[in-house]
Parts: sequence; C-alpha cells; structure tokens
Amino acid sequence: MVDTIKVSAKSRSTAVAGAIAGVIREHKHAEVQAIGAGAVNQAIKAVAIARGYLERDGLDIVCIPTFVEVDVGGEERTAVRLLVEVRGTFTPKVEPPPPPKPE
Amino acid sequence: MVDTIKVSAKSRSTAVAGAIAGVIREHKHAEVQAIGAGAVNQAIKAVAIARGYLERDGLDIVCIPTFVEVDVGGEERTAVRLLVEVRGTFTPKVEPPPPPKPE
Repeated sequence: MVDTIKVSAKSRSTAVAGAIAGVIREHKHAEVQAIGAGAVNQAIKAVAIARGYLERDGLDIVCIPTFVEVDVGGEERTAVRLLVEVRGTFTPKVEPPPPPKPE
Repeated sequence: MVDTIKVSAKSRSTAVAGAIAGVIREHKHAEVQAIGAGAVNQAIKAVAIARGYLERDGLDIVCIPTFVEVDVGGEERTAVRLLVEVRGTFTPKVEPPPPPKPE
C-alpha cells in the first residue's frame, strides 16, 4: 500500500513532481489526490514534470484520472485521484557532458 | 492527424468527455489542450468521465500530460496538453437489463 500524495492549490508542482518520482522509482505506481481546480492543476503539472524526471531513469509514466469521495472535516467532497503508473521502460539516452566553458 | 480538443474553464466536462470518447473510438488516441487551472480541471474531469463511457466499449484509456507553448492572440502561453491513448481493450461486462418497474 502506497501513501496517497495529497496536493493543494498551494503545493509547488516541482515538489509534488519530486514526491511522485520518488514513489514511482520505489513502487512503480503512485496515487495523487486533489480537491478543487487549483489543486488538480498543480497535480497534473506535477505529473508532467515528473515525466521529465523519470525519463532520465528510463521510466515512461501515464496517469489515470478517477473520482473518489473523501471525507474532509466531516463533509463529503469529490476529489480527483490520479493513479500514476509505469507504462514501460526504455534505455535513457546518455547525454554527453557539456563542453567546458571557455575561461 | 487528429484535431486538438480545446477546453476552457467554462467547458462542460461531460460534453468534453463525449468529444474525447468519440475521437478515441475513431482514432484510438486524442489530444486535449487547456490553459489555466479552471480549464485543466475541466479537462481532467472529462478524461475521468470519458473512461466510464469507454469502459462500456471495452476500451481502457490513460492520459499523458505534457506542456506545450501556444500562441494566444500573439502572446505565448504555456498550455497543458493531455495525450489520451487506449492502453488496452477488454470484453465489457454485459449488464442485465434493469428489472421492470412496478406499475
């Protein structure tokens, strides 16, 4: 069982992307949950950024959006849950080191 | 080449879901583009709803969020582009017809 990554409208998308990438590397799947337009936007941007991070590891991720009812302070709210999964693996291109800068 | 489905914050997510499902049935992939949190939220909800529509056809869809620079009235904006693809197919469960309502 993998902990759900909860995202708010104030979450930094790069921080969430780092969390997603970490969970994916370990478990090959992750769950991201967001309530409200601002949070969903940050969550999706985070998945797009995490794709970049994980490409370097040769991991190709996809996301599956679903709805889920959650309890927030005794009130039922509809959250968007993004299941993030590894679709496939590939050999990452090894980039040559950048040329030395002229002094 | 499949037309991009452009989503705004005012788009109805069920209408967008219908459009996605239609394009997926025909082409097996679709492109959805949204600018701004409200639009991205409607787009993701639409993909979640479209998953339900397409399950009945035995189609299992996933989405791949990426960023793309687009020109909006001469100004460059960063849009979220969702590539929606069929991951697999399955035989849909045939649901029995609902029992007749008592008169």
